[in-house]
Amino acid sequence: MPRKVALVAAGMSKFGNRPEATPKALFDEAWREMAGRVDRPWSGHADEAWIGTVGFGGHQPGNSAALFLQGTPSQGAPAHRVENACASSGFALRNAFLAIRAGAADVAVAAGVESMNPYSKAHRGAWLGVSGDTEVERASGLTFPGVYALMARAHMQEFGTTREHLAAVAVKNHANGAHNPHAQFQKPTTLDKAMGAPMVADPLGLFDCCSTTDGAAVALLVAEERVPEFTDHPVWLLGSGAATDTLALHDRKEWTGMPATRVAAAQALTAAARRIEEVDFAEVHDCFTIAEVMASEDLGLVKKGQGGNAAAAGRTALTGDIPVNPSGGLKAKGHPLGATGAGQAVEVFEQLRGLAGGRQVKEARLAVTHNVGGSGATCAVHVWEADA
Amino acid sequence: MPRKVALVAAGMSKFGNRPEATPKALFDEAWREMAGRVDRPWSGHADEAWIGTVGFGGHQPGNSAALFLQGTPSQGAPAHRVENACASSGFALRNAFLAIRAGAADVAVAAGVESMNPYSKAHRGAWLGVSGDTEVERASGLTFPGVYALMARAHMQEFGTTREHLAAVAVKNHANGAHNPHAQFQKPTTLDKAMGAPMVADPLGLFDCCSTTDGAAVALLVAEERVPEFTDHPVWLLGSGAATDTLALHDRKEWTGMPATRVAAAQALTAAARRIEEVDFAEVHDCFTIAEVMASEDLGLVKKGQGGNAAAAGRTALTGDIPVNPSGGLKAKGHPLGATGAGQAVEVFEQLRGLAGGRQVKEARLAVTHNVGGSGATCAVHVWEADA
Repeated sequence: MPRKVALVAAGMSKFGNRPEATPKALFDEAWREMAGRVDRPWSGHADEAWIGTVGFGGHQPGNSAALFLQGTPSQGAPAHRVENACASSGFALRNAFLAIRAGAADVAVAAGVESMNPYSKAHRGAWLGVSGDTEVERASGLTFPGVYALMARAHMQEFGTTREHLAAVAVKNHANGAHNPHAQFQKPTTLDKAMGAPMVADPLGLFDCCSTTDGAAVALLVAEERVPEFTDHPVWLLGSGAATDTLALHDRKEWTGMPATRVAAAQALTAAARRIEEVDFAEVHDCFTIAEVMASEDLGLVKKGQGGNAAAAGRTALTGDIPVNPSGGLKAKGHPLGATGAGQAVEVFEQLRGLAGGRQVKEARLAVTHNVGGSGATCAVHVWEADA
Repeated sequence: MPRKVALVAAGMSKFGNRPEATPKALFDEAWREMAGRVDRPWSGHADEAWIGTVGFGGHQPGNSAALFLQGTPSQGAPAHRVENACASSGFALRNAFLAIRAGAADVAVAAGVESMNPYSKAHRGAWLGVSGDTEVERASGLTFPGVYALMARAHMQEFGTTREHLAAVAVKNHANGAHNPHAQFQKPTTLDKAMGAPMVADPLGLFDCCSTTDGAAVALLVAEERVPEFTDHPVWLLGSGAATDTLALHDRKEWTGMPATRVAAAQALTAAARRIEEVDFAEVHDCFTIAEVMASEDLGLVKKGQGGNAAAAGRTALTGDIPVNPSGGLKAKGHPLGATGAGQAVEVFEQLRGLAGGRQVKEARLAVTHNVGGSGATCAVHVWEADA
């Protein structure tokens, strides 16, 4: 029986448009919040770190993991930059988890950071596009909204999903985000407003798309036997699963779901020895509203084809039977690419420690996080549980 | 006692100027050589993969790990892109090693790939620079040859190292590369030629600098109990060590060596329960001749300050008491950034299996590989042993 892995602290920067902050400054802000949440006095030293960032441009695109640790008490520790597009820090979590299980680290950092504001809107689109298939999709002018719009159309045709269903996801996530002080958008919206927003890529309107965001998040994982040095209230990271798929949609048989999500989820739940029916809430990768619909189906939170209906019926709301994205999700909390997976761990920490204030999921004990790169080419899923 | 990790196959593409090959094509070429070296019939399926690539530009800068597996029998397995500058695939090796120890994978791929030819010489210089410190060094126009030239000057002043010592490293590595069919340069050179070459950054001339290279390398690691399915002649990966340091030289106390090398080496040797004196040969990161001098000292292969002397006296030659870079090193084999760490594993495989032909180190049983990112901001060291 391998030793258990605990999340003993997690923190993040304010997510948003942060032109004043460099990626390093965002990382340091997240680190400070994380360190401030360790219950016992801690040296600040971690044995190893994995830091997810897409960072194709910017100040320090290469060898940045060393820079992020510089000036922290963990300076000098082995550090890895992980880049799996928007799933970068979901995979950072996986690596930190594995290192602790392997006995290579007792204390490991899994983090993510992204600074998107330095890029013009035009450059940002081109830059984002290079995480999808570049040979055909990008060359054809198909950006991510376009790719997800194709999946939305397929889902509508096969399952009767409507634009109202999609808008309901946005309304729900903005309602949750209104209670999240870290979120980029903290204002509720209405179905009318979401439905009436300008079209981006038919059928996806402005409110169906997440924003571009600057931000960072840092999670501190420790081996079971070291937990008492950090806290009396660990959150347990029970299982990790991951998978890849083809980059391009046209190489896949299925457009109404993501096989990589199903493989990663099965692996994570098996490792955790838990069933999806036991999960109290999920943080899923809603880069577009249709992505949340597909994720809630692929994870098995709702039946295939029922993701849109479930959102519209309030089942995935904070007070529903299976709350999805209590943080506000990528939609309202914001989506600083490389920071999103680690940001999900921050939400799990706050929820399972009862710190989530107005967005607290009642009696939350078991949670799933789901982080996707590209349009499903990479996916990492993690299962978390509150201490007994 | 954690289970042991074995290298059961490793292969690489031809290193060189390969404008006809995409990064994916280079990866596939390396994969085919690796797969062809598995002694038993193998499905081609690995449980997980770590792929190092710097790849700031090119066809698929984002989410590329998924692309590299696509079309191989391992398509769909979790895959991570690791980017730690020129140490990217040294850290990929470390992650694969840890995953097998953790029990998360029985069969793992550690690979690296880089395509540098698509960039003009001018762009290549700017692009390489972003793996060093960008805030002061790069902004001051200090490129990597300049950074290493400062270290060379400091080494000369403190230890009496000469340009002849440095040139001796180049001559030795080109002599070794002449026996390596994978190498970019397969022609011996002379001390006169090396000394007379154009100056790049005083005191480093053209022969003190490695080249820019296209190439890929793939290593297949498996858990001890699965070895018999692959081969009767495993190479054991006994230990892994890694460390980081500041990105910029001016933030370090020492310019004549790399503290990260010493930390990583100590960690790897301790994990392996071996002493450096037992090592039969080393593959070290000679991006510049002075880098090999410092590495041989920091690893403890020779005394501090004696790295230059040792090369000039033939001690690090194939027939010397401690052969360094029998492959030809980055200098002659070539340096496709992200592929270099995995490429060192290929040399270890060939040497410890007795496949190295004209560059075979006699009675080689224990080896060290040493992979550096930037000017020492990241470093990974591995210890390998032939089967008993």
